[in-house]
Amino acid sequence: MNDSVKYTLPEDRIPRAWYNIVADLPTPPEPVLHPGTKQPVGPDDLAPLFPMALIGQEVTTDREVEIPGPVRDVYKLWRPSPLVRARRLEKALDTPARIYFKYEGVSPAGSHKPNTAVAQAFYNKEAGVSKLSTETGAGQWGSSLAFAGALFGLEVKVYMVRVSFDQKPYRRALMNVYGATCVPSPSTETNAGRSILEKDPDSPGSLGIAISEAVEVAATNPDINYSLGSVLNHVLLHQTVIGIEALEQLDQTGDYPDIVIGCAGGGSNFAGLAFPFIGKKIKENLPTRVIAVEPAACPTLTRGVYAYDFGDTAMLTPLVKMHTLGAGFIPPGFHAGGLRYHGMSSLVSQLKETGLIEAAAVHQIGCFEAGVAFARAEGILPAPESTHAVRVAFEEALKCKEEGVSRTILFNLSGHGHFDMGAYDDYFAGKLEDRDYDEAALAASLAALPQVAAE
Amino acid sequence: MNDSVKYTLPEDRIPRAWYNIVADLPTPPEPVLHPGTKQPVGPDDLAPLFPMALIGQEVTTDREVEIPGPVRDVYKLWRPSPLVRARRLEKALDTPARIYFKYEGVSPAGSHKPNTAVAQAFYNKEAGVSKLSTETGAGQWGSSLAFAGALFGLEVKVYMVRVSFDQKPYRRALMNVYGATCVPSPSTETNAGRSILEKDPDSPGSLGIAISEAVEVAATNPDINYSLGSVLNHVLLHQTVIGIEALEQLDQTGDYPDIVIGCAGGGSNFAGLAFPFIGKKIKENLPTRVIAVEPAACPTLTRGVYAYDFGDTAMLTPLVKMHTLGAGFIPPGFHAGGLRYHGMSSLVSQLKETGLIEAAAVHQIGCFEAGVAFARAEGILPAPESTHAVRVAFEEALKCKEEGVSRTILFNLSGHGHFDMGAYDDYFAGKLEDRDYDEAALAASLAALPQVAAE
Repeated sequence: MNDSVKYTLPEDRIPRAWYNIVADLPTPPEPVLHPGTKQPVGPDDLAPLFPMALIGQEVTTDREVEIPGPVRDVYKLWRPSPLVRARRLEKALDTPARIYFKYEGVSPAGSHKPNTAVAQAFYNKEAGVSKLSTETGAGQWGSSLAFAGALFGLEVKVYMVRVSFDQKPYRRALMNVYGATCVPSPSTETNAGRSILEKDPDSPGSLGIAISEAVEVAATNPDINYSLGSVLNHVLLHQTVIGIEALEQLDQTGDYPDIVIGCAGGGSNFAGLAFPFIGKKIKENLPTRVIAVEPAACPTLTRGVYAYDFGDTAMLTPLVKMHTLGAGFIPPGFHAGGLRYHGMSSLVSQLKETGLIEAAAVHQIGCFEAGVAFARAEGILPAPESTHAVRVAFEEALKCKEEGVSRTILFNLSGHGHFDMGAYDDYFAGKLEDRDYDEAALAASLAALPQVAAE
Repeated sequence: MNDSVKYTLPEDRIPRAWYNIVADLPTPPEPVLHPGTKQPVGPDDLAPLFPMALIGQEVTTDREVEIPGPVRDVYKLWRPSPLVRARRLEKALDTPARIYFKYEGVSPAGSHKPNTAVAQAFYNKEAGVSKLSTETGAGQWGSSLAFAGALFGLEVKVYMVRVSFDQKPYRRALMNVYGATCVPSPSTETNAGRSILEKDPDSPGSLGIAISEAVEVAATNPDINYSLGSVLNHVLLHQTVIGIEALEQLDQTGDYPDIVIGCAGGGSNFAGLAFPFIGKKIKENLPTRVIAVEPAACPTLTRGVYAYDFGDTAMLTPLVKMHTLGAGFIPPGFHAGGLRYHGMSSLVSQLKETGLIEAAAVHQIGCFEAGVAFARAEGILPAPESTHAVRVAFEEALKCKEEGVSRTILFNLSGHGHFDMGAYDDYFAGKLEDRDYDEAALAASLAALPQVAAE
């Protein structure tokens, strides 16, 4: 039996509740602080941006949060997603490791992002909100929220980092298909955007700037709410359907992972797969290794500091305790647009601090190499972000071979790369570089971190 | 219950045999003729191009052809594909119709094409062939054969119509990912290509020219076989997994289609869904309407003649009795590259002649309108080819509304449009035109049809 096996679940096994890791953490999460007072924010501070249901989820300590029926109904369009025993890949790598991957590219938008986009659209619709604003880098998140908006009848406005808006028109086109409006950021529509453009009319934009614009629009318009695609607790919560399904699918195999791997930009796909396994690790004292993989060019978990910082450039967001490279940090160019964020989810950061997870930083050329080898073995072409998880899965599988031991490796294949063929083209043309971040620029952005007395 | 429902099947319900409609046809198919002698071809004539197993499938009258284990094993990477009751779409169209679609975009290449690519790669590998040559228009077929070649360790060479090679680099990049070589056609590598380039160094190429190149390379190199993505009997045979699965999935619903719809270029995705339903229609004398949908700009079934013609421009292929616009016919520009072929599968043509199926021709702007509305309702973005089926499904659903009757409509959503966002961009920018074919050019290409005494 040398062939890959796909483990599916019937539709009625879509989870009925999300898993909240906060209930199982050794210590409670650090509070989010108001950017002005530097005191913990309350629900009223967040109410201009989010509906109360999501604010409640941001701070709940309940272990399980029920998934509303209409959200499960939309999940049925693609969930449960498959878990695959990658026997073809094992053979190609000639490894005794048992490799599994959970595949989230089956969603209509091609990634894990709709898991939370659908939930956020639902709760906003329930709260009577008719418009959402958000930001997007390469467009994976923007297109997912556009999809969710189409299904729930919400208007969606996306501020897209200008360099991606110009260079990657296809995800923007997908947003248009779903009826969303997408404008390049910095734009002339917001104070944040205008102030950037005054200084630099040709600004290529950044995720931090785009967040500032989307937050400003929501904060200053009572009928518009803000939606974020990663980082926040409620976003990670929604993604845990991935890991909950994977646990049940693994029951069919008789295997349990020794190593769980996900790529991490803001942390949501990593958390989505890993949190249910980390909860079990805590409760049952298991030796599971859990690895968050980030780009060496934007090494938040491996080179950042664990401190309070802003989520955006204009310093409009609350302060979050997290691993950060500083809100002013601009990584060098690389292709995994979803991994270019200066910060990291507070929950993922806390897990790293407490030693419950590890972090690894990898260079992009090795990631594309792994992505191509994966596609040739298993057929699926990974998104550039997802290749980071594939890369470390390869490294662990080859370690098994060297050591002559069989370990079970599980990784999250968070999305397909059909919108990223330009990146693969560059890879084959030898145009990719493994650029490192600028040490001096990192030192400068870290020196500019806000001062918070509580620390 | 207003939500779309996805009907899945467990992996062990992947069909164990393909369905061969020839066994149930009222009259036998017309023979394929040698281009020189104009006498029926024998296996030896085809042996330079195809392995004997596929030549056997081309002419078999067995009702069932067993699917080899290794082919089913690869099918498991994405099959069984889902059947969806499109309740959200029904609601959006406010129709009493019950709409189902079978979704083939879940394959790694994003379309139905791997169903036959995998089988063809397997039989060639079994026959000791190490290299395949083929042609591709927009690239859906080329990328699918590249995928299959990667899994079975075959070298794949793809002659890609030059205008698509230049304008649509992303499917070419996908072929590279799978390890295939892709060259623009006309190329300087073949007599067929060189003779075109001598007359017109800037030739944009055509599917007919690319077929000539791929056939020439296979015919003149003993270690290279040729592979075709549609039209031939064995290709359509392999696609019947679609309809066989759909029949079983419909058993779960209690519904049976009144109308079955597929888009038709060479006829393979249409046949894949429709043939099992047509077989049942013949055997049980059912009133099922079966509709093949083609572009109004390349109206093979609705405006072509039923006659023997060549499959390629250089007149290298055998002569096939089919609906044809003439091998010299060049359609005006439109976006559904997979539907730009001058001919049609001989089996599909025969069914049209005998009245067992209908044909409809539609314009592209209406197709994109339908594709966008479909995406906003069901989340999935259809390929431009597939929007032709969506369009006619819409029209039939709206007829149900007008007439106040509920009919069950089933269509094949043959692929997703993630590689075709440029076409959607043009649609939103108002750049699409509904161009008609040139009547005089059609008359000229029909006047040049080969003379065959048997007719």
